[in-house]
Amino acid sequence: MRILLIGAAGTIGSAVHKELVSRHEVIAAGRHAGDVRVDITSDESIAAMYEAVGKVDAVISTPGATYFGALEDMTPEHNEISIRSKLAGQVNLVLLGHPYVNDRGSFTLTTGILMDDPVLGGASAAMASGGVKAFVQAAAIEMPRGIRINNVSPNVLEESKEKYEPFFPGFVPVPSPRVAQAYRKSVEGGQTGKTYTVY
Amino acid sequence: MRILLIGAAGTIGSAVHKELVSRHEVIAAGRHAGDVRVDITSDESIAAMYEAVGKVDAVISTPGATYFGALEDMTPEHNEISIRSKLAGQVNLVLLGHPYVNDRGSFTLTTGILMDDPVLGGASAAMASGGVKAFVQAAAIEMPRGIRINNVSPNVLEESKEKYEPFFPGFVPVPSPRVAQAYRKSVEGGQTGKTYTVY
Repeated sequence: MRILLIGAAGTIGSAVHKELVSRHEVIAAGRHAGDVRVDITSDESIAAMYEAVGKVDAVISTPGATYFGALEDMTPEHNEISIRSKLAGQVNLVLLGHPYVNDRGSFTLTTGILMDDPVLGGASAAMASGGVKAFVQAAAIEMPRGIRINNVSPNVLEESKEKYEPFFPGFVPVPSPRVAQAYRKSVEGGQTGKTYTVY
Repeated sequence: MRILLIGAAGTIGSAVHKELVSRHEVIAAGRHAGDVRVDITSDESIAAMYEAVGKVDAVISTPGATYFGALEDMTPEHNEISIRSKLAGQVNLVLLGHPYVNDRGSFTLTTGILMDDPVLGGASAAMASGGVKAFVQAAAIEMPRGIRINNVSPNVLEESKEKYEPFFPGFVPVPSPRVAQAYRKSVEGGQTGKTYTVY
């Protein structure tokens, strides 16, 4: 398969790349690195990426940015960070991208544990993930040409433990290669409209 | 209690008004009618509403606008309608409004059946509802001063049957007075972080 992997330089993206590259052609996309550059908060940048890459069998989008901070001090502008990147950015990858995906291809987006199991400071991130999850479930029933769509909801990663553990007390991190298997299930499997939780 | 009801002129808003007005002081807000005018897609308008109304015990937000249309033809601009109104509009009512809500007061937002039970054309609406639901669950654990937050997820309404039934085949509509009871449960009860589904 020909796979477009957005966010390939991140922790999850690297693990997904490693998992898939031996069996597939993986085109790495990212803001600051990769075969093609993309800023998913910009429709123009997304459109230019698809134009440059052409037809693919799968599009994988890893995390996207979210705002993390106390609800009491959160402003609409703070929340907009999550809306523009993790929520609208990922949805727009689908809205602008489906013409570039081959028949019976797939989209795999990324959500996260906070939508099910919230932590202090995580309301904006939870919102973005919950929106993506519901979009995926609804979009699945009307994707054209048998294109599938799923999302992966990972726990905190082993690799990011030092950085995030203080904010996720009692969360037991998962190794990124295990998370990568959920993306593989979405790309190489046959399911659609699913949320693969890796908690 | 002193209750600010946004969208008071709508089908759900009217039913909620009718249910609550005999026992509470209800301040009606809306885009084109009400004691105070508000456009929830504008932070300035939301701030001006709270400034005009002052302290309240409960804020209730009824539906908000969403985009309805085939996924294949949906553009980022179409999807933005749902993001700005039903999603960010309702979240911003909370972010900008909690200083105006009395201790142990409440917010009640509105989601909808499509986030759980999708229909053709409903992906954008599902996204907005899913985002609000996840925000509510996460925000509940860090609201200041014992303020509670819930959301009501209604089915298609009896009163809107003629208009919406072709798009919701096999959905059994619920009467709006029954939906209004879920808002009452949120405002007069003690629960927080909940989704009250009225399907």
